[in-house]
Amino acid sequence: MRTVIFLLMSALAACIPMAFADGPAPSHGIEYPAGWQDWAAISVAHRTDNDTVRLIVGNDVAVKAARAGQTNPWPDGAVLGKVVWKAASLDAWSEAKVPSDLVHAEFMFKDSKKYAQTYGWGWGRWLGMEQKPFDKGPEVCTSCHTPVQDRDWVFTHPAVFPKD
Amino acid sequence: MRTVIFLLMSALAACIPMAFADGPAPSHGIEYPAGWQDWAAISVAHRTDNDTVRLIVGNDVAVKAARAGQTNPWPDGAVLGKVVWKAASLDAWSEAKVPSDLVHAEFMFKDSKKYAQTYGWGWGRWLGMEQKPFDKGPEVCTSCHTPVQDRDWVFTHPAVFPKD
Repeated sequence: MRTVIFLLMSALAACIPMAFADGPAPSHGIEYPAGWQDWAAISVAHRTDNDTVRLIVGNDVAVKAARAGQTNPWPDGAVLGKVVWKAASLDAWSEAKVPSDLVHAEFMFKDSKKYAQTYGWGWGRWLGMEQKPFDKGPEVCTSCHTPVQDRDWVFTHPAVFPKD
Repeated sequence: MRTVIFLLMSALAACIPMAFADGPAPSHGIEYPAGWQDWAAISVAHRTDNDTVRLIVGNDVAVKAARAGQTNPWPDGAVLGKVVWKAASLDAWSEAKVPSDLVHAEFMFKDSKKYAQTYGWGWGRWLGMEQKPFDKGPEVCTSCHTPVQDRDWVFTHPAVFPKD
């Protein structure tokens, strides 16, 4: 009996970390980039054609490359994230267009060998506040990015930031 | 002679750290918030009236408060930064308005006691890529922020971010 209780408790203990690590499922087979909400910014944008505002962030490798101007090509290990919200007018300043509902967060993962078939990048997107994985194929992403294939497939020019 | 050389070298050594720590001078008596370039984002904006795009960042205290919805009042220790660039059209997608030249980076420093005279916030601004301190008085800042005095003097509504 004691052995049975021990085995049950061991099994339970093994499950707990998995339960707590239960983030969004992969998109195009790529794991969700946990913690991106605290990554530093690389740029911002307002797409007036579909009235969305955007925050472009990067992991440490990407931010370091952006600040150093080494982005063509971006280095392996760089991850770029674009967070997209529907735009709305700020209540206290109507000419300011600011985020309202979240549309999606989408990411490019640079690994020139692993993702050689998709131009050196893995392409992932997670939809809405529940971050539901997009899984219609990376060609949906790459077809739209074709105009910037000579810029290593990245639309964003990193914004200029002053040094301290 | 040996004593003189020793004293000269000691004096020189004491000066070196100051020379390397020579960041932007204070604005309204407030020290430059070193390292803000790597702070997490709280929101973004496009002010269509003066065609500037903006990134709103926060220090750890501010980001934690923003994510928890505890922003009226913001907690003491919170620092909010707004980075302002002239807007330009992205070359590869003309309907996207993106950063060009840096206008300024401006900051609000919450300390309800220290800055009681200016509504609980210290107000600082640094201009251009050289981050030249603005020093025309915090009333220039507070007069513009008066419409949001019931929101603890902050225009920005933190954007919604999904949890992992």
